[in-house]
Amino acid sequence: MSLLAVGSVSFDDIETPFGRQENALGGSVSYVALSACHFHPVQVAGVVGEDFGPQQERIFEGRPIDLRGLARRPGKSSRWKGSYGYELSEATTLDRQPNVSLDFHPVLPEAYRSASYLYLGKLDPVEQLDVVGQMIQRPRWIARETAACWIEGSREALGRVLREADMLLVDEREARALAGEHNLLKIYRKVQAMGPRILVVKLGEHGAMLLAPEGVFASPAYPLEDVFDPTGAEDAFAGGFLGCLASRKSTEVEALKHATLTGIIMASFAVERFGTQSLEFVTEHDIKRRMRAFSDMTRIDGL
Amino acid sequence: MSLLAVGSVSFDDIETPFGRQENALGGSVSYVALSACHFHPVQVAGVVGEDFGPQQERIFEGRPIDLRGLARRPGKSSRWKGSYGYELSEATTLDRQPNVSLDFHPVLPEAYRSASYLYLGKLDPVEQLDVVGQMIQRPRWIARETAACWIEGSREALGRVLREADMLLVDEREARALAGEHNLLKIYRKVQAMGPRILVVKLGEHGAMLLAPEGVFASPAYPLEDVFDPTGAEDAFAGGFLGCLASRKSTEVEALKHATLTGIIMASFAVERFGTQSLEFVTEHDIKRRMRAFSDMTRIDGL
Repeated sequence: MSLLAVGSVSFDDIETPFGRQENALGGSVSYVALSACHFHPVQVAGVVGEDFGPQQERIFEGRPIDLRGLARRPGKSSRWKGSYGYELSEATTLDRQPNVSLDFHPVLPEAYRSASYLYLGKLDPVEQLDVVGQMIQRPRWIARETAACWIEGSREALGRVLREADMLLVDEREARALAGEHNLLKIYRKVQAMGPRILVVKLGEHGAMLLAPEGVFASPAYPLEDVFDPTGAEDAFAGGFLGCLASRKSTEVEALKHATLTGIIMASFAVERFGTQSLEFVTEHDIKRRMRAFSDMTRIDGL
Repeated sequence: MSLLAVGSVSFDDIETPFGRQENALGGSVSYVALSACHFHPVQVAGVVGEDFGPQQERIFEGRPIDLRGLARRPGKSSRWKGSYGYELSEATTLDRQPNVSLDFHPVLPEAYRSASYLYLGKLDPVEQLDVVGQMIQRPRWIARETAACWIEGSREALGRVLREADMLLVDEREARALAGEHNLLKIYRKVQAMGPRILVVKLGEHGAMLLAPEGVFASPAYPLEDVFDPTGAEDAFAGGFLGCLASRKSTEVEALKHATLTGIIMASFAVERFGTQSLEFVTEHDIKRRMRAFSDMTRIDGL
């Protein structure tokens, strides 16, 4: 029941009203892997440059994270520079350098090709199709994260990937752009017609909503007094979600709810420090304690 | 343990992308009373003009709603005209006529002056102080709804009312304007320093958050496919919240959580039809069924 995450690894320069950090390890699969590995082993596929060295490798070391699918190329890893305003809700991209990721096509190691859970990060839909085509058998569960730019740019390829996917993970804005609807239940109907049986919509500081044929599950975010850096919150959510699901070996609605909650909790850790730092240092004990606190917080007895 | 609601009764012209309605009964206390009366008797104080006739009285008739405090004045009731865009998130006010409510000062009937639960609608803080001063003894529980215009306009009177209030009910935008903070936990600290022990922040389509010294309780909104008219959703929430609290005769944290959930459910009914129509026709059976469905939706077993 292996979990494979395909996407970007990058170096980020991040500025928030509370500080700045240069050269932080980032990219969707870094966050997904460092979040999911607390629950289940993860195989990672992507590309890095020569600047990805022992310092970065150490971050993944000693965890059930398989980096054999992380290609090394001459040149620099992709870089992103962004800043957040006071509301911390959306980053302004100041600079983006694809570097080695430009024209890179992931080739999956043999050991990766039978993964049961496949996460496709914000790649071009054409790349995503190519990855799906490399699998020996169709994974039981394909989750994909989308991005507004792909939604607008390559509708046709997107349609073909969606037909392969069991689940679509998007944020509120992407969901609306994809379906041309505002209401989430109406969006879900349209997404189901495109392929995915499950839709998870991340609502940022308002939590997440899981839409499944069996019903709707909505969860608020874990309330935090100090949000430090929202970068990677959605990927940390995705990692917690998929890691939990893979470890439970089930995609029943109770497992999906539990996975949503796990995603919420992992996202809450991710935003407490710069980059992936919180995900690196958080312990199983911290995670369990926050899960219990959150469960108490949202539960009403005697109804 | 009586519940007294002081605020506006008006006639509304409402336009949404799904239709329009003229002369709908509106105003904060109409929604609060028609929502709260499903759980507990309500005393209403406000003012109406000669256009408030048998047709409007019939809406309140046969329910535990006391209209003795609803003053009748020569002239027209206050009127509001607003429209909503596709997202249904915020109304654009097209016209507002205070009419008889201009320079009106509520005088509470003797029977109202010992209420244990007092709801102060979006009145000017000076009016709110005047109402509090008419009570024989300080109510056990004063809830107040605020409005961005008062927050900006009359800081000093607002401070004096807040010192009297046990709870403050606001929407997200008002909370931020009041405290000059974005983060809800930080806002709560500032609100506590102003007086209220409890803060309830309504998050529109994202539900509500209850902040109490015992902890934080967040609830998503009840997911609806068809939101028809958001007018009065917040007042319906307030009515459900206070009606539930008054009926439980408790302000312990479990009662507060239950009240928040009741508010969420009443708001979900309110938006399904124009004006107060849904609140008029909803039955105890409908409310119980939706409460149970929502409880199932948000509960995760075995954590």
